[in-house]
Amino acid sequence: MSDETAIPVVGMLRPRWGDPARTAELPGAAAALAGDREAAAGVDPDTISPARSTVDVAVREDISAVVGADHVSDADAARVQHTRGYSTPDILRLRAGDADDAPDLVVYPGDHDEVVAILRVCSERRIAVVPFTGGTSVVGGLTPDRAGLAGVISLDLRRLDRVVEIDEISRTATLQAGLRGPAAEALLREKGWTIGHFPQSYEGAGIGGYAATRSAGQSSAGYGRFDEMVEGLVLATPRGTVELGTAPRSAAGPDLRQLVLGSEGVFGVITSVQIRIRPAPTARVFDAWRFASFAEGATALRRLAQDGPLPTVLRLSDEVETALNLADPAGAGSEASGPDDAGAGSGEGDGDGDGDGDGGGCLVVAGYEGAADEVARRRDAASSVLIDAGGGALGEGPGEAWRTGRFAGPYLRDPLLDAGVLVETLETVAFWSRLHDVRAAVTAALTDSLTASGTPPLIMCHVSHVYASGASLYFTVVAPFADDPLAQWGAAKVAANSAIRASGASITHHHAVGRDHRDAYHDEIGPLALDALRSVKASLDPDGVCNPGILL
Amino acid sequence: MSDETAIPVVGMLRPRWGDPARTAELPGAAAALAGDREAAAGVDPDTISPARSTVDVAVREDISAVVGADHVSDADAARVQHTRGYSTPDILRLRAGDADDAPDLVVYPGDHDEVVAILRVCSERRIAVVPFTGGTSVVGGLTPDRAGLAGVISLDLRRLDRVVEIDEISRTATLQAGLRGPAAEALLREKGWTIGHFPQSYEGAGIGGYAATRSAGQSSAGYGRFDEMVEGLVLATPRGTVELGTAPRSAAGPDLRQLVLGSEGVFGVITSVQIRIRPAPTARVFDAWRFASFAEGATALRRLAQDGPLPTVLRLSDEVETALNLADPAGAGSEASGPDDAGAGSGEGDGDGDGDGDGGGCLVVAGYEGAADEVARRRDAASSVLIDAGGGALGEGPGEAWRTGRFAGPYLRDPLLDAGVLVETLETVAFWSRLHDVRAAVTAALTDSLTASGTPPLIMCHVSHVYASGASLYFTVVAPFADDPLAQWGAAKVAANSAIRASGASITHHHAVGRDHRDAYHDEIGPLALDALRSVKASLDPDGVCNPGILL
Repeated sequence: MSDETAIPVVGMLRPRWGDPARTAELPGAAAALAGDREAAAGVDPDTISPARSTVDVAVREDISAVVGADHVSDADAARVQHTRGYSTPDILRLRAGDADDAPDLVVYPGDHDEVVAILRVCSERRIAVVPFTGGTSVVGGLTPDRAGLAGVISLDLRRLDRVVEIDEISRTATLQAGLRGPAAEALLREKGWTIGHFPQSYEGAGIGGYAATRSAGQSSAGYGRFDEMVEGLVLATPRGTVELGTAPRSAAGPDLRQLVLGSEGVFGVITSVQIRIRPAPTARVFDAWRFASFAEGATALRRLAQDGPLPTVLRLSDEVETALNLADPAGAGSEASGPDDAGAGSGEGDGDGDGDGDGGGCLVVAGYEGAADEVARRRDAASSVLIDAGGGALGEGPGEAWRTGRFAGPYLRDPLLDAGVLVETLETVAFWSRLHDVRAAVTAALTDSLTASGTPPLIMCHVSHVYASGASLYFTVVAPFADDPLAQWGAAKVAANSAIRASGASITHHHAVGRDHRDAYHDEIGPLALDALRSVKASLDPDGVCNPGILL
Repeated sequence: MSDETAIPVVGMLRPRWGDPARTAELPGAAAALAGDREAAAGVDPDTISPARSTVDVAVREDISAVVGADHVSDADAARVQHTRGYSTPDILRLRAGDADDAPDLVVYPGDHDEVVAILRVCSERRIAVVPFTGGTSVVGGLTPDRAGLAGVISLDLRRLDRVVEIDEISRTATLQAGLRGPAAEALLREKGWTIGHFPQSYEGAGIGGYAATRSAGQSSAGYGRFDEMVEGLVLATPRGTVELGTAPRSAAGPDLRQLVLGSEGVFGVITSVQIRIRPAPTARVFDAWRFASFAEGATALRRLAQDGPLPTVLRLSDEVETALNLADPAGAGSEASGPDDAGAGSGEGDGDGDGDGDGGGCLVVAGYEGAADEVARRRDAASSVLIDAGGGALGEGPGEAWRTGRFAGPYLRDPLLDAGVLVETLETVAFWSRLHDVRAAVTAALTDSLTASGTPPLIMCHVSHVYASGASLYFTVVAPFADDPLAQWGAAKVAANSAIRASGASITHHHAVGRDHRDAYHDEIGPLALDALRSVKASLDPDGVCNPGILL
């Protein structure tokens, strides 16, 4: 039923996003921003030559002895395709032909034991190891610090692509880390199950990356964050194997799974995870609602998060994002029919002049997936709450439009960059009581910084993940290129990070830490917790070869 | 409304449990087990003299300089009341007059900063520090290893008893660690909120202990485990303060809260936690159901856990526990009216001859708390599932009887021990697919061991905590004293631990590790994870004074 299963596993080609066969045209608003600026199309990646691989022949021989010579590559194309991640600065660098951070070798292990063996070789030889599943990091998580090391390998886990076991009684599946999202979902759907994890990076990212970065998908209200789905995991370290998750929950000491989740490769390489699975949904409906203001919409989301019921997907766009969505013909915000069976109250939000009507206001998307009767019940109850909270029903049209277009966003970046328009996203999470202050602080910081660069930005914000005690805030920032877009964004990002921390929010909700958030992360957890994490790293990775410079 | 708020904070007096003003009489079945054995009443605790306090005057002066001389005690009574926990072996030792493990001093700090300062003094002076909130550990969590140290202090947190903050928007409360369960609940109920955490140790245990041991309460199906409620915490360590929990959820590295939760005092002392709170319930109903077998009942619970809706309390007793409950006049299992509004299907389980009727079968208690309409809806839907799964409605009588009697269990141990009957509990948790094998293995191990001791046991088992992927198993073991009850139970416990691990379950679901589960815990997490934890301890507690010998 679901379109997620129709999304193929694509061979993305850096620096561009997604399926190479698919191109995106700029929507009107974005094209207007680009104005008459000159095109800034990047260098063809096939023409980029990274610096010569610095690892010596003995390293390559040792690694080949583990995985076979066919599974080790120092070809330029492979190295370029494993260079950095997908943040806008990463993409800008590669578009400029800069592949200085390319790994020396790309290695494709075939199983967990080979990963352990490679980590041992790399410990002995002092070679940094970067785990690679989808390579979609937007925080510099694939750009290790080479200082003091003899080289860098990218450990591409694509051959670890099996569903190891499905436990239908316990409703768990054990998946190898190299499975990409669409492939994992397709394999489970064949058996009637779903993972329910659909991050914006879905086409590119993989299971190991989801776990290592605490990924959260668009359906987190219904299916939970990826870290909440993980029941067990296997970690390969230079010292051997750590296997965690004897039982779903336990009082047997600290929950060490939660120490490995979010560790971003610095303790070793996650090679498989046992995750919760659920019956594949048989019914689906996505409704759209309009609220008079972001604050009113946030209060409605809070009510659903605290008192239920939660839709499967729940998100709120601010006025700017709403206006741009509605300006997009595909977003078709003018349809005004209520949800088919939203209950007797479905019209109550009409006529107040605030909550709906054309123009203005804030869009809420509430999507429901599951068994038909359960979807109907949940939709009915949630719709009552939304109406009571001041929501005006916009019907299924814009809800479906959001759903079908929800993986299209990342495709817009490339034509924007081509047109000389900077676009980047950043996100945070805070307790409900701080949410509006955080949003205001981050918006002001970005506006001030980019305006000071001579490029006043367009800033959109949405809430896409809600919890009983708080919610995420996701910002999309668009501005014309300054003379040096890297410096332009670098300054804005520093300003945003400072604002996030100063307003009491976390430096990241689901993008992870990588290198870009490292300093702010250290500020967030404090020096003693950082020492504790470093001691864990020293214990499991005594030679410091596991993704050095990331996180810690 | 709820009786939990009527439970006073009592001054328990070891070795006996609970409110000293309350005595328990043995129910018929237990009295029959006791038979004509001679009474084995223990020593009056007021007559027990622990060994002389070994810490020197300088230590006492240093600590007094931090907390004031009035808040340091080496009186025999105080030391005896801080000796060990409440496991049956702990109680048997104290009943025999053995207070060899008494702390040298009992210290009552007044705030977080005093805790940090005491930890610094104790690091310098090499004095072990045992955090003490309720002192109800049943796994030896209060009995540190003195080897290489100059003494032991019990750090009683009773003066840290404030509600620091209630964030009504985010629905969180920040509570100091020394608040005992009933006091914390009462303070929140005054403002219209509940924590919803009611472990069997409720009368004795406190907030810090809940957090340090990953406590799970009887209402975990509705309110979650304590570790799931924690949004933030403050840890005092010998090196200073660790403060965690910037946001409800985040991708900012490993979830370090989950590294402190379950750490049982070995990294330091949790001094406050920020936890989720919910509106105090205004409606409540407890239903009882009978299933033909444990397996059938477990399948019903699994359906509720996997597809919902979950009651607030959900538990399944096996045939033996059910028979004993029903034999108890207070348990009154003969009432056969269905839930008042359990829906049209409420009688469908009748007449099949398996699921209900007098005698035999397995009792399920399903309790609901919340707002009236929400309780009615959830009860209706859950009742339909229970009926469909073969449950026969026993009505509210035995459900209410369970609810009102649910804190009475621990009071039975003292009269049983007085009568020469050993009683102890142990628990585990496993994935659903392994649950029945685990139950069989543990039951066999306990039966074999105790029978070999010449004391064939009575073994009861129940499921009291369910998850989508698994459930807890809680065993109550009753057997007449052998000549040496400590050795008798020691052998049985070793056998049970082995069976738990061999059958792929976790060594503890909610009792924690302490000393009693330490070896099995190390087996469960493996040597590399253990090294990682030890490295965290070395980082935060470099002199090794924080609850040494516990967990690690």
